Amino acid sequence: MNRIYFDNAATTAIDPQVVEAMLPFLQNGFGNPSSIYSFGRETRLAIENARKSVAKILNAHPAEIFFTSGGTESSNTAITASVRDLGCKRIITSKIEHHATLHTVEYLDNRDEAKVSYVDLLPNGHIDLEHLEQLLAASEEKTLVTLMHANNEIGNITDLHAVGNLCKLYNAIFHSDTVQTIGHFNFDLRSTPVHFISGSAHKFHGPKGAGLLYINENVHIKPYIHGGGQERNMRAGTENVYGIVGFAKALQIATEKLEEESAYIQGIKYYMIEQLKKHIKGVSFNGDPMGRSNYTVLNASFPKSEKSEMLLMNLDMDGICASGGSACTSGAQQGSHVIRAINSNPNQIPVRFSFSKYNTKEEVDAVVQKLKTLI
Amino acid sequence: MNRIYFDNAATTAIDPQVVEAMLPFLQNGFGNPSSIYSFGRETRLAIENARKSVAKILNAHPAEIFFTSGGTESSNTAITASVRDLGCKRIITSKIEHHATLHTVEYLDNRDEAKVSYVDLLPNGHIDLEHLEQLLAASEEKTLVTLMHANNEIGNITDLHAVGNLCKLYNAIFHSDTVQTIGHFNFDLRSTPVHFISGSAHKFHGPKGAGLLYINENVHIKPYIHGGGQERNMRAGTENVYGIVGFAKALQIATEKLEEESAYIQGIKYYMIEQLKKHIKGVSFNGDPMGRSNYTVLNASFPKSEKSEMLLMNLDMDGICASGGSACTSGAQQGSHVIRAINSNPNQIPVRFSFSKYNTKEEVDAVVQKLKTLI
Repeated sequence: MNRIYFDNAATTAIDPQVVEAMLPFLQNGFGNPSSIYSFGRETRLAIENARKSVAKILNAHPAEIFFTSGGTESSNTAITASVRDLGCKRIITSKIEHHATLHTVEYLDNRDEAKVSYVDLLPNGHIDLEHLEQLLAASEEKTLVTLMHANNEIGNITDLHAVGNLCKLYNAIFHSDTVQTIGHFNFDLRSTPVHFISGSAHKFHGPKGAGLLYINENVHIKPYIHGGGQERNMRAGTENVYGIVGFAKALQIATEKLEEESAYIQGIKYYMIEQLKKHIKGVSFNGDPMGRSNYTVLNASFPKSEKSEMLLMNLDMDGICASGGSACTSGAQQGSHVIRAINSNPNQIPVRFSFSKYNTKEEVDAVVQKLKTLI
Repeated sequence: MNRIYFDNAATTAIDPQVVEAMLPFLQNGFGNPSSIYSFGRETRLAIENARKSVAKILNAHPAEIFFTSGGTESSNTAITASVRDLGCKRIITSKIEHHATLHTVEYLDNRDEAKVSYVDLLPNGHIDLEHLEQLLAASEEKTLVTLMHANNEIGNITDLHAVGNLCKLYNAIFHSDTVQTIGHFNFDLRSTPVHFISGSAHKFHGPKGAGLLYINENVHIKPYIHGGGQERNMRAGTENVYGIVGFAKALQIATEKLEEESAYIQGIKYYMIEQLKKHIKGVSFNGDPMGRSNYTVLNASFPKSEKSEMLLMNLDMDGICASGGSACTSGAQQGSHVIRAINSNPNQIPVRFSFSKYNTKEEVDAVVQKLKTLI
């Protein structure tokens, strides 16, 4: 049975060229990058070259790029440091953030280190920017705004410039979870009003266990993980050299043909919307799929019936990988907190389909064909 | 030029069998372990098999084994959770711990979350157990004791049972940084009085970026990295599947022939002691190299002279990898905090040689020969 992998927002296939770039450091190039002898300096060089490459692609300074174990650690670091090191007493976020954000802010709120407010959402899932400004204006306390760039479940894209400029106006710190957009959109961090962004290699055909934290050069924080002097004293622990090399290689490949590949993937998404509308009665879409939306993500709702309640399991039996929401919470079986926040209709089965350069319209046809028999 | 790698306490060569075990998950088996479809369950299974294998080798319960990004993260988690979740108001540690421990306890001390005391050291670098008991007895406050199993610079081994039993007596929590001993010694955690241990795959021929945190089943803490429900809600973030698989494979290989290989490596260490004494006038050894000492580590001091001040650099020029102390602090250029704590003679140049199964006595001969010309 051929597998159809429509869950690229959960994780992506590693590009074989990325594995090839990593292999030398899994084999002979094992020196500790912190060692002072030449064999250690070789891996140090690989890390610093990775940093330069990533910085160049994102138009940031290499000194603003820190490698972590993943997007979750990056978001934990940025949010916690904003409170502990930058004096933020208040956090503004939204109910549809990834749990890496939500559970971190809840932790800080529970410990009375910061007070959390949630910005209102519009019916299409977008941030209500007017409400964000009201919240910012309502208090003199130093505030962290943490809002994701593209939602991982419904794909909605938040305008980083609009949010960042509001933050500037009210002297707030701005962190954005860009895990779903790094490697999928062009970034120009030098002209983007953001203090922190988080990224993860395995979302753009890189390895798992390799993350990015961008820290704007004007921001000075302490490490979240304490110990050795790695990452210029910002992230302790022997570097995951292959992961870092893989991160940079994957980002390079992902951005080389970004326009071409994003148009291709967008085409698949639009084709699926069209085919679903044509063939599945009662289908609807969550978020703003034809508007400000990530071209990789499509969240459809199907009418609930005895058959469709087992939809994901039945798709799986046909080798089709799709998900009910974030993989990070799929074990929880409580449904999606994102869908709950924007659309509380219990008679619908939401399914996220998410695409990559490896998908085809033929796969869409096969999935829609299968869905017809299941709904 | 052939490289002689005598810095195995900094990091080790990955065993080719470990890379082979990792590769399937770097290639086709990329599913997200948290996804509910079968393709995700395959990687979930790989992780759970890794957990079972590690648990069996360490004689722990699989539910006590948590995978992290490395030993540093593990130690940060254990120490911070002891203070925040287990109510420890006081931390007892030593001046010769790894910075992953020292900088974490300093952070908590600076934030007034806990008060830190340092246990005295004997001239040979061992923990003064009588002083430890005095410290424990001196306060009613709930206490965390964090003392490493084998010191990474001088190799001294602390008796986990002796310390753990004292902790039991005084109702203290005991964390041990076992980064230098997992994979090098047999562990029987079910009969070892310890609440937390930290491990790192790249110290026993496994991959970088893969760590272990053992949490005794009677201890209940919150995660250090917040987010998704991975690692049974104890460590958020998409799992580094290949790293975890590599950790388990490396531990399996390391412990399969442990007696044979440790005797072999011990032989190399003793041979080097003998050869150094024979050929290098004024050599001395830091710690307790012939006593309770890790068979992988030998820390020698050489008389300071104009020539010997450049010792490490000159060794490097001959392809010999050795270090002045921990790699994690080598960038700092302030010398070793461990050597400073036990031996403040400024007229000596300390060098750590650390060995693995891949080293030979012929390499010792070559290094001693070279040292003769440099001192």
